[in-house]
Amino acid sequence: MSGSKNRQIILREIPKGKLGQEHFQLRESDVPRPGAGEVLVKVRYISIDAANRAWMQGTTYRAAVKAGDIMSGYSLGEVVEPGDTRLKKGDLVFGDCGWQEYAVRPAGELNRLPGLEPVTHLLSVYGITGLTAYFGLTEIGAPKSGETLVISAAAGAVGSVAGQIGKIKGCRVVGIAGSDEKCAWLTGELGFDAAINYKTENVHKALQKACPDKIDIYFDNVGGEILEAVLFQTNTKGRIICCGAVSGYDGELPTNGPRGIPGLLVINRITMRGFIVSDFIERFTKAFQDLAEWVATGKIKVKEDVLEGLENTPQALIGLLNGENLGKRMVKVS
Amino acid sequence: MSGSKNRQIILREIPKGKLGQEHFQLRESDVPRPGAGEVLVKVRYISIDAANRAWMQGTTYRAAVKAGDIMSGYSLGEVVEPGDTRLKKGDLVFGDCGWQEYAVRPAGELNRLPGLEPVTHLLSVYGITGLTAYFGLTEIGAPKSGETLVISAAAGAVGSVAGQIGKIKGCRVVGIAGSDEKCAWLTGELGFDAAINYKTENVHKALQKACPDKIDIYFDNVGGEILEAVLFQTNTKGRIICCGAVSGYDGELPTNGPRGIPGLLVINRITMRGFIVSDFIERFTKAFQDLAEWVATGKIKVKEDVLEGLENTPQALIGLLNGENLGKRMVKVS
Repeated sequence: MSGSKNRQIILREIPKGKLGQEHFQLRESDVPRPGAGEVLVKVRYISIDAANRAWMQGTTYRAAVKAGDIMSGYSLGEVVEPGDTRLKKGDLVFGDCGWQEYAVRPAGELNRLPGLEPVTHLLSVYGITGLTAYFGLTEIGAPKSGETLVISAAAGAVGSVAGQIGKIKGCRVVGIAGSDEKCAWLTGELGFDAAINYKTENVHKALQKACPDKIDIYFDNVGGEILEAVLFQTNTKGRIICCGAVSGYDGELPTNGPRGIPGLLVINRITMRGFIVSDFIERFTKAFQDLAEWVATGKIKVKEDVLEGLENTPQALIGLLNGENLGKRMVKVS
Repeated sequence: MSGSKNRQIILREIPKGKLGQEHFQLRESDVPRPGAGEVLVKVRYISIDAANRAWMQGTTYRAAVKAGDIMSGYSLGEVVEPGDTRLKKGDLVFGDCGWQEYAVRPAGELNRLPGLEPVTHLLSVYGITGLTAYFGLTEIGAPKSGETLVISAAAGAVGSVAGQIGKIKGCRVVGIAGSDEKCAWLTGELGFDAAINYKTENVHKALQKACPDKIDIYFDNVGGEILEAVLFQTNTKGRIICCGAVSGYDGELPTNGPRGIPGLLVINRITMRGFIVSDFIERFTKAFQDLAEWVATGKIKVKEDVLEGLENTPQALIGLLNGENLGKRMVKVS
């Protein structure tokens, strides 16, 4: 690698309002060399996730990203120079390599992945978003056949998989998304029973129409007003899967929470539970088996939205926060 | 009973703001006679519960009370005229007999209670409030020794029992209550590790001081700002027991919920779960055994706040909503 250059995206400053190009900066540096126990990784695909924006708001389940740092982000990469016996050249790995072409990481912070085709599935249905959909719905949602499942950000990477798993489990599945095109895709391609465009419809009324037996499970990716609308139509012993709160990520932190909390939780004996996928790490093997079977039999259709070029990573995230993507967004770096 | 009179408290109108005497009216009528399958009950003690006020706000886990009706309320009574073979004269029963001296109820809606002394314990530690404390804490809170448990309305009927069960389970127990007298009682008599007067202290700062290891379990009887303060100091995998929302009962319905929902639930993988005690009816026998043993061995001290006279029932509820009571409030009717 001597003489090669590494391109990196720096988070220039922490956005106060909406995230924009001005918050990022492209930088060129030398390709770093791994020390003892470290590995040099060539990044192939960077995963674009709403959580990237949440990391800018403060400490979450990980430390906040800081101004001046290489922007953090999960990616799929290839081992170029293993400085550790656990990995060898050519191994496919997953980890937080940051938004750059080459990264040096401690070997212990990288997960070796199996080779499969297409390799991008390792970031979508078999990656964090697919596993999040799987564990959120099956473990926290505990769906029973005939129940009504509502999903927000339903055309996103997590929502689109969660909805299809809901159909496999026999639920009536209603998706909420931000465009007529997305809604048509959910009902036409993915088999959702109904879809609501929250930008043009009154969500409360549309839910009443789409959920004649009210709501048993809500897979919440957004929080805010949609969570409130769902809460007021949730059945006794309903479950709310708190997966994300993207409505509050791209700007100031929300100044209030949804009405009906905790009152409706008591009255209707509702459970709300937050989770992150690593809580279920002991059961990943079973999840991979189930997901692979559902993909192989066509019960889960995988949609990926792949952009190209490291320099387009900031715009990829900005666009995702504005609802551009269908399915799992990622950036192909090499 | 022929010729006897029955005194009843009517809910004259549904309060829009705070509940007052003007919303009630005392009425005299004839003692009713039971029909087939019905039972005439002489009411002995009426249970005064914050939930009585919530029933005026609309449908909850039961139908709303309506203007012009006899005010609803649970009580302990004695069978005077059994119109059904399942009950006999002199049996002690529990049910929603309303705020009156005599009530006719379908036999199937009354629960026969064992005779024990003092009989008032059937409305406190062995009644709905004691069982609510027991199941809320043990089933939803799932306390582990060494964890920190915070309880709001801690000097009330539910909170005071929940806190003592928390001590039995080895928790650090911090109570939040509305007077220095209550706080002194919690720490001095009941063995709470700390107590916070929310009327005179900054709850957020006081919690930081009282909970050096932050909060693992919150037994929430109040909702509102205190729930929000706790949420921001709850540990990863914390549990919030949603038992009541009394801060929102005595007035208009709250216009917003606590900040941090759902964001903090996701980040810290917190579970919030609402319940009512009847969800656990299959396990009541075990609960009675545990509670009786703890009472017998002095591990639970039972505090009752007994007022006298049906005519004082409205003031008993108004006072409870204003935080007058220590322990379980009830009105002795006969």
